[in-house]
Amino acid sequence: MVDVLTFGEAMVRLAPPAFQRLEQTTNLDVEVGGAELNTAVGLVRLGRSAQWVSRVTDNALGRLLLRQVRGTGVDTSRVLLTPAHRVGVYFLEFGAAPRPAEVLYDRAGSAFAHLAPGMLDWPTVLTGVRWLHLSGITPALSADAAAESLTALQTARSLGVRTSLDLNYRSKLWTPSAAGAWARQALPFVEVLIASRGDAAQLLEVAEPDFARGAETLRARFGVRVVASVERSADAVWRDRFTGLAWDGQLHTTRIYEVEVVDRLGAGDAFAAGLIHGLLADDLARGVAIGTALGALQHTLPGDLPWVTAAEVEAVLAGASVRIRR
Amino acid sequence: MVDVLTFGEAMVRLAPPAFQRLEQTTNLDVEVGGAELNTAVGLVRLGRSAQWVSRVTDNALGRLLLRQVRGTGVDTSRVLLTPAHRVGVYFLEFGAAPRPAEVLYDRAGSAFAHLAPGMLDWPTVLTGVRWLHLSGITPALSADAAAESLTALQTARSLGVRTSLDLNYRSKLWTPSAAGAWARQALPFVEVLIASRGDAAQLLEVAEPDFARGAETLRARFGVRVVASVERSADAVWRDRFTGLAWDGQLHTTRIYEVEVVDRLGAGDAFAAGLIHGLLADDLARGVAIGTALGALQHTLPGDLPWVTAAEVEAVLAGASVRIRR
Amino acid sequence: MVDVLTFGEAMVRLAPPAFQRLEQTTNLDVEVGGAELNTAVGLVRLGRSAQWVSRVTDNALGRLLLRQVRGTGVDTSRVLLTPAHRVGVYFLEFGAAPRPAEVLYDRAGSAFAHLAPGMLDWPTVLTGVRWLHLSGITPALSADAAAESLTALQTARSLGVRTSLDLNYRSKLWTPSAAGAWARQALPFVEVLIASRGDAAQLLEVAEPDFARGAETLRARFGVRVVASVERSADAVWRDRFTGLAWDGQLHTTRIYEVEVVDRLGAGDAFAAGLIHGLLADDLARGVAIGTALGALQHTLPGDLPWVTAAEVEAVLAGASVRIRR
Amino acid sequence: MVDVLTFGEAMVRLAPPAFQRLEQTTNLDVEVGGAELNTAVGLVRLGRSAQWVSRVTDNALGRLLLRQVRGTGVDTSRVLLTPAHRVGVYFLEFGAAPRPAEVLYDRAGSAFAHLAPGMLDWPTVLTGVRWLHLSGITPALSADAAAESLTALQTARSLGVRTSLDLNYRSKLWTPSAAGAWARQALPFVEVLIASRGDAAQLLEVAEPDFARGAETLRARFGVRVVASVERSADAVWRDRFTGLAWDGQLHTTRIYEVEVVDRLGAGDAFAAGLIHGLLADDLARGVAIGTALGALQHTLPGDLPWVTAAEVEAVLAGASVRIRR
Amino acid sequence: MVDVLTFGEAMVRLAPPAFQRLEQTTNLDVEVGGAELNTAVGLVRLGRSAQWVSRVTDNALGRLLLRQVRGTGVDTSRVLLTPAHRVGVYFLEFGAAPRPAEVLYDRAGSAFAHLAPGMLDWPTVLTGVRWLHLSGITPALSADAAAESLTALQTARSLGVRTSLDLNYRSKLWTPSAAGAWARQALPFVEVLIASRGDAAQLLEVAEPDFARGAETLRARFGVRVVASVERSADAVWRDRFTGLAWDGQLHTTRIYEVEVVDRLGAGDAFAAGLIHGLLADDLARGVAIGTALGALQHTLPGDLPWVTAAEVEAVLAGASVRIRR
Amino acid sequence: MVDVLTFGEAMVRLAPPAFQRLEQTTNLDVEVGGAELNTAVGLVRLGRSAQWVSRVTDNALGRLLLRQVRGTGVDTSRVLLTPAHRVGVYFLEFGAAPRPAEVLYDRAGSAFAHLAPGMLDWPTVLTGVRWLHLSGITPALSADAAAESLTALQTARSLGVRTSLDLNYRSKLWTPSAAGAWARQALPFVEVLIASRGDAAQLLEVAEPDFARGAETLRARFGVRVVASVERSADAVWRDRFTGLAWDGQLHTTRIYEVEVVDRLGAGDAFAAGLIHGLLADDLARGVAIGTALGALQHTLPGDLPWVTAAEVEAVLAGASVRIRR
Repeated sequence: MVDVLTFGEAMVRLAPPAFQRLEQTTNLDVEVGGAELNTAVGLVRLGRSAQWVSRVTDNALGRLLLRQVRGTGVDTSRVLLTPAHRVGVYFLEFGAAPRPAEVLYDRAGSAFAHLAPGMLDWPTVLTGVRWLHLSGITPALSADAAAESLTALQTARSLGVRTSLDLNYRSKLWTPSAAGAWARQALPFVEVLIASRGDAAQLLEVAEPDFARGAETLRARFGVRVVASVERSADAVWRDRFTGLAWDGQLHTTRIYEVEVVDRLGAGDAFAAGLIHGLLADDLARGVAIGTALGALQHTLPGDLPWVTAAEVEAVLAGASVRIRR
Repeated sequence: MVDVLTFGEAMVRLAPPAFQRLEQTTNLDVEVGGAELNTAVGLVRLGRSAQWVSRVTDNALGRLLLRQVRGTGVDTSRVLLTPAHRVGVYFLEFGAAPRPAEVLYDRAGSAFAHLAPGMLDWPTVLTGVRWLHLSGITPALSADAAAESLTALQTARSLGVRTSLDLNYRSKLWTPSAAGAWARQALPFVEVLIASRGDAAQLLEVAEPDFARGAETLRARFGVRVVASVERSADAVWRDRFTGLAWDGQLHTTRIYEVEVVDRLGAGDAFAAGLIHGLLADDLARGVAIGTALGALQHTLPGDLPWVTAAEVEAVLAGASVRIRR
Repeated sequence: MVDVLTFGEAMVRLAPPAFQRLEQTTNLDVEVGGAELNTAVGLVRLGRSAQWVSRVTDNALGRLLLRQVRGTGVDTSRVLLTPAHRVGVYFLEFGAAPRPAEVLYDRAGSAFAHLAPGMLDWPTVLTGVRWLHLSGITPALSADAAAESLTALQTARSLGVRTSLDLNYRSKLWTPSAAGAWARQALPFVEVLIASRGDAAQLLEVAEPDFARGAETLRARFGVRVVASVERSADAVWRDRFTGLAWDGQLHTTRIYEVEVVDRLGAGDAFAAGLIHGLLADDLARGVAIGTALGALQHTLPGDLPWVTAAEVEAVLAGASVRIRR
Repeated sequence: MVDVLTFGEAMVRLAPPAFQRLEQTTNLDVEVGGAELNTAVGLVRLGRSAQWVSRVTDNALGRLLLRQVRGTGVDTSRVLLTPAHRVGVYFLEFGAAPRPAEVLYDRAGSAFAHLAPGMLDWPTVLTGVRWLHLSGITPALSADAAAESLTALQTARSLGVRTSLDLNYRSKLWTPSAAGAWARQALPFVEVLIASRGDAAQLLEVAEPDFARGAETLRARFGVRVVASVERSADAVWRDRFTGLAWDGQLHTTRIYEVEVVDRLGAGDAFAAGLIHGLLADDLARGVAIGTALGALQHTLPGDLPWVTAAEVEAVLAGASVRIRR
Repeated sequence: MVDVLTFGEAMVRLAPPAFQRLEQTTNLDVEVGGAELNTAVGLVRLGRSAQWVSRVTDNALGRLLLRQVRGTGVDTSRVLLTPAHRVGVYFLEFGAAPRPAEVLYDRAGSAFAHLAPGMLDWPTVLTGVRWLHLSGITPALSADAAAESLTALQTARSLGVRTSLDLNYRSKLWTPSAAGAWARQALPFVEVLIASRGDAAQLLEVAEPDFARGAETLRARFGVRVVASVERSADAVWRDRFTGLAWDGQLHTTRIYEVEVVDRLGAGDAFAAGLIHGLLADDLARGVAIGTALGALQHTLPGDLPWVTAAEVEAVLAGASVRIRR
Repeated sequence: MVDVLTFGEAMVRLAPPAFQRLEQTTNLDVEVGGAELNTAVGLVRLGRSAQWVSRVTDNALGRLLLRQVRGTGVDTSRVLLTPAHRVGVYFLEFGAAPRPAEVLYDRAGSAFAHLAPGMLDWPTVLTGVRWLHLSGITPALSADAAAESLTALQTARSLGVRTSLDLNYRSKLWTPSAAGAWARQALPFVEVLIASRGDAAQLLEVAEPDFARGAETLRARFGVRVVASVERSADAVWRDRFTGLAWDGQLHTTRIYEVEVVDRLGAGDAFAAGLIHGLLADDLARGVAIGTALGALQHTLPGDLPWVTAAEVEAVLAGASVRIRR
């Protein structure tokens, strides 16, 4: 029995230390990450069982990736291995105002992008699974990946597996119209949609300044049951104000976190983990609260993965001080 | 002739770099620290002679510890070496709001915790010493350590050596009631008490919102001559507002420092060093001012030890700018 | 179904980089290791399923340890977690002739040493397991650990689970007579004994200059079916001659490897993995060959764990050149 | 054809990592820098050709220096090499409020300080050059360097090469009166003067609280055409407010940047680069805007050199968000 | 005027430190390398002017690559930049006997592999050039690269530019028959062929156990004037015996070097540099001697590039001791 | 009471990691060293009290130096501090055959080189001292240093303090004839002379292929009582054969060590420490044995200082195996 299955690509992340530009560095720190993987890890940290389904080249980089994933406790038994293709890589430069952090993707031609229909037998894969989650990055990776993503959602719906989609538009991977077209096909099979106001406007033509009103429109127009999002201020790089909110006919909010930012990546994915965790217990308010707390904590952690304990999330929720614990 | 003798344990400190969690790290930075050691080092930086009395296992870790202590110029000639037991270790994770820094102690069973009465001949040890300082951590380490701490204070008083105690309650080592009971025995032999309002309330049942009023109560009830404390805002991890104050019948304050926090550890111990430095010259106001400046600077230094010069402390006191010096 | 279950303690290993002495270092590299864990990992690398049974404190160090173990693919589902006690640590200094590498253990009081009878229900634990392996380090850790080790071997024998014991005498943990006494109790339940000539002489009073003759004596006297060992020259630190051999009534040898030594630790444990791998296929000769190749490769790998692939082991067995592969 | 030639010394910079004091470090990060070199690099990043003229000892440190300079694309073909003397070094400690960053120069006796008249044939050196830039550090290095600096400016003026001088007073190198005397000799040959209000007051006795009024006085009294400066708030070490402004009879300003400070060094030199870049196109307003944007970005970059692209400068000018780019 | 132009791809090289496997690392050291680039750098170190012609993606990785190349003093003015494609990467694991070093290429789809005929106008590119060098890796990268390589050699021959080819067969890039077919087309335009006995046999069907006899056959059959090669013992990873030899109708040899191996990569390319350096002075014997000395030294240098001085090469040729120089 | 006083300069040592050339590095490891300091540290490790007399600039580098020295337990109370001049630095590149390690000194103009007569009152300094040791580097640093060195030896002799001189000729500091002239002045006051055969021949015109015969000539001609030396094979960089020998009318030898070389520096100084240690107990044979063992171990230690224990020296003397100790 698996609580949550996530489907997507993960990459090896290479980042120069100490705010260096890639151009000047002689050294790269190695992490792994990928939106759906990050969410799966978040769920494990919160006490859920999670499985990550993907396709990875069986070489030293692929072994590095799988070693790191297995180390988190996420189930990798459904990951397909192939001698062909390559492991996607991305380079990350940390920023400082007025210089934003920057990501250079080198993921074209990966084993995941070559995942072809039929490699995964979705009815089998989804048996014994309670929840399927994926992000809008997965269908952006190739036409086959888009088709597989749709098949996964459709199969889940037909098997009674609950579903969530984090829209997560990436302009370096596809166009808004392509992303929007895919989303319109997918949404009928989605219970929970995570979408920033920008993505909702650009992909789904729902442009509402008010979150609740926009969410209600999305519900009405696309048949999803829950709409959720995170919001940030982002006027600096090293600090931020971060919160999450959700709408299922009524508005669920939580506190706004003043975060000191070590590494911003994965915060949205952590929010998704908390949200799903709450929804598995049919408690959306708690999902928003836990997701936001986990997302806030994620800003303080090096790497994309949420190395926190459930107890730490609870402490933050309870308003614990930031004084040193000793 | 030794200006100040401090008595306590020091540990090897192991901390992951770059805000990593212990769980994810492959590398640990090594420092040494201990409340009483930190204060001794602060006194040496301010120009005083200081001796640190302790008990250390004579193995490679113990040699590491002693090498670092000797390097500071603190006198280690009274440190007892033993082949037995172990060197205490603590692991430190740096934090970022809303994630506090965290300390994981692994100090049980150390050579210091096994220090038995009679190993130190206090009348001899304290001969030629002007001031004895210890913190409430020392008696928390074992029953014998509590007894020795008391003996040390009593002997000092009988020899006319001046004394200070930094209450410094550690909930991971003992209970408030045990700590309070020990403190009540010790305070008759203490001239200068450093106690946060929280510790005063929890251990000594003196709960006053106003520092001066609380300090006066402590003076009246326990016979100490001076009560001092530091105060912080602590609503973030990387910045803080820090100040110190003291009461000896009148209130001594100094400026409030806006500090950018590299490593918070040792700031209270640095304050104690400055305070004692002033009191050795019978100038409590200057003690508060120097202690607070040294404590403020300590937030900016990696490790527990105050690697600053007396000239730098004076420059901060004089309100020097934070523009680069060149 | 689990091919091999190993039972023992693992520790966090802390080592100064670049041949530094512990005393002079400011930095420690973090690895994990433990004889039985190392063997389990070796078996997974060779394609077997392996489970490691142990007891670990549930704190940040324990999470570090488990993350690293899970990352290898070894099954940790039977590891007991406890909030109490501590995670054992060992410090390693690398050497260079004439300075030997040195290990400083700080493992007393660990969660494993406090493992009490009844915590593990051996009949359940061993169900579905084909092979049980442990080393002589496990019974050396505490009286309870010695009793549990015996129970494990006895239960295995009664359930038809095959068994191996790597004698692996550690003089820092117990005396030869204590170790010998325990071994004499255990050997009736052991099918495969790995023992150096030194250990055989010191613990079991079988002192034969000739391996085969000694092995036959061990078989005759203690009822084990197979006796195996590795041999080294060890006249330098950075290079060695390494081989393995076994006796089951006839002598099985393999080539002698000239190894360039990056990190000697774990080579014997890797040999055990290869040996068991061969014996699971009832091919002792192949077990010796693969174990020796894996052990030789282990000398070239930083850390205690055998990060090689089965294909690399086969290439070494096939006599592949050491020219760069590109 | 060379757009801009800069003349000055560069040094190897050695800085402890992670906010350490020099006194406590076991490790130094290596960078190179020098005011005029930094400006030359800034010009290359903005698309100009730039040449750096200097004198360097031909040893391993000199090769390190030249390798780094050549790597930027700055033309080093006029750098004089000598087997004699030494390469200047400076040690940098990063700060945190209330501890300022600190620089310890060890540059006495360098090959540049021993540059003697006649070693550079200025009419030849300046042929084909459009602009000559130097800072007030160059003449401070030795009497010969002061004489050469003057010769360079005079020759430039006589050949119609445009000129700029960044006053950049360094109290560790010479006195205000010596610096003022040299500046008074030099200014008749300078078209563009960059001078902080403090330097203008201390060296040139032009003490005006209002920038424009002071600049006009400098123009009137010393015959320069343009006066420019940067301004900062500097009440913290890790953040600052930074802007630039210029006067050529009318005031040119740009936005004020809130910068998160990784490494403050080189920001003024970067401003000079942008200013000259604008003036080469006879657009002072754009020079101020680009110089300030480049200077703001420079605060975010480790090392003295401006590792940014012209596109990034344009993005900052266009008010791009600091959200991660992906 | 350029002494030597080399044509080929360079990559960013990423290597785990301290003999780690890629799979276990958290950190990668960054270098750059490529056979023809390495040779160009070697020529610059020996005092020649050298130009490297290539095609590189204009992103942060491409800037890193070009910065490193420019830093060596090699002329990059003919390198084509393109916003498209990617920068090739290779991962390197260092080895220790019996584990060979291993290279994992991730270079498919690079800007160089997409270099199309017409992008480089060879008659212009080769004007003012004395020598053209390339290796057999360049034509292996794509059909277009093979065609361009041939065009380059043909144009060189027609313009009187001297030519060399280092056969350098890479089995991961193409087959022996494809490589042999290309070589047969190219050799009529090649003056100097560098070929190991293995490559000569596998690609050109010249399998002679004796170097001189094989070389004479190659000269006779393919019309090259000089045949050269290096030879190694390669029975260990950290030490080797290395020498070079050449045949132009008579045999030229030099001493055999006992090398301690830090990083084997680039030794053959360094040999090519020395060989060409000698041949530019029409002194093949000296070319072999210098090439072998430079190649021997290259084994001692981290990275692919020969960071030695001509004086150091001369000292090695003169038989200087390996005692520390001070 | 001080057993041994040594007199000389120490420097901060900066070395690139991982066999890098200085030219290519971005990082330097920091150590401290100096011939006489190294010997003093060796004596402390062997259980003697030692004092190091020197002159150091009181800046951050000087504090770094003194911190490291104090950390060893060597007495620094006689070190003169001055705000003037600079702290000498040397850069070290590690080598690999055929590339020797290389040292680049940058020590000119140090506080020690500016030590003037009268700054040290030698009769006072030498009171309570049993032995004075210096090397031929000290007088090479300046004319004043040469004069002071002579005064020190003369005063020692007149006070009955025993003396030793390690000839240690450095061709980068002075000429053989200057060094020889000084040595001839000094030797009448020297009891123990350490001199390699090369130095004896070049400086003192005693060129004997046989050590004993040369030593006897030195004794006869210059009146020293003991002549000692170390000998090495030095045909590789990473391994060596090392031994020591001495002559006082009879020949004292010890075993020849096969050493694996981590860092060759300080081996001769360690030998001197052991030699003096033996002579303080009037046991030259033991001095040679301990000095050679300490010198052999010094090859295995990073940095110039002998971080070993007396017990480890004894173990090596006793022929302990190089197998890992655990």
